Amino acid sequence: MKLNRSTDMALRIAMFTAASEARTTVDELATQLSLPRSHVAKVVQRLQRLGVLVTIRGRSGGVAFAEHAGELTVGQVVRAFEGYDEVVSCEQPACPLLGGCRLRGELRRAQAAFLAVLDDVRLGDLVDGPSGRLLLTLGATAAGT
Amino acid sequence: MKLNRSTDMALRIAMFTAASEARTTVDELATQLSLPRSHVAKVVQRLQRLGVLVTIRGRSGGVAFAEHAGELTVGQVVRAFEGYDEVVSCEQPACPLLGGCRLRGELRRAQAAFLAVLDDVRLGDLVDGPSGRLLLTLGATAAGT
Repeated sequence: MKLNRSTDMALRIAMFTAASEARTTVDELATQLSLPRSHVAKVVQRLQRLGVLVTIRGRSGGVAFAEHAGELTVGQVVRAFEGYDEVVSCEQPACPLLGGCRLRGELRRAQAAFLAVLDDVRLGDLVDGPSGRLLLTLGATAAGT
Repeated sequence: MKLNRSTDMALRIAMFTAASEARTTVDELATQLSLPRSHVAKVVQRLQRLGVLVTIRGRSGGVAFAEHAGELTVGQVVRAFEGYDEVVSCEQPACPLLGGCRLRGELRRAQAAFLAVLDDVRLGDLVDGPSGRLLLTLGATAAGT
């Protein structure tokens, strides 16, 4: 059971930018998080639409964690990036048992329980206290700065 | 967030054989569930090792749902087929933030909540009453018999 790669990247970027008071760029994020630049650019765009990141224009512009995004939850980010997909694909290809299947409902309940845990975790919770500073140090080390 | 294809197939096969009093074969399962035969053969082997299916030898042999396998849970099947993988891959490629990451623990808690729901669902529960007979009808329809 795996989250999509884009969800994983979104969570890393949200966590890292939440820890940082400075603005950053797609290039810096790609370097500090050891992620492919083209994917980072797409994920950053979606995080902006979600209100997690904001764009700062101008010569010293870049992206930054939005002022109140610490109140958004991990569950909200995961739902936004995962969409409404179920954990199994009953329709592609179509499962002949679908009309009599009780399993699908149970898997939906399990998925809801998964998301409910993450709905209780704010993005801000991930970087409170020394954890946030440690994340920045780790990113800087990865970037070799 | 998706379960592995083999987990999905294992659950379909377990549900279908649980509903059936007759023994079946890999070929029949592949036809009735519209699944690729080679994958069905591998999944059936693993379900035998798990004690969900038993092999009946001889000319009229085949595989059948094991006598007490109705007491096994969906959670047990999912754990066996999914292994101990986490929902994100922190180590491949290595995430630089790992040493300061609080997210991993939260994702593990969410995964545990997912599995806890399925630990309460017995394979027998999926086919109790009219649901079981309906599954067999659907499989027969898919097989064109």
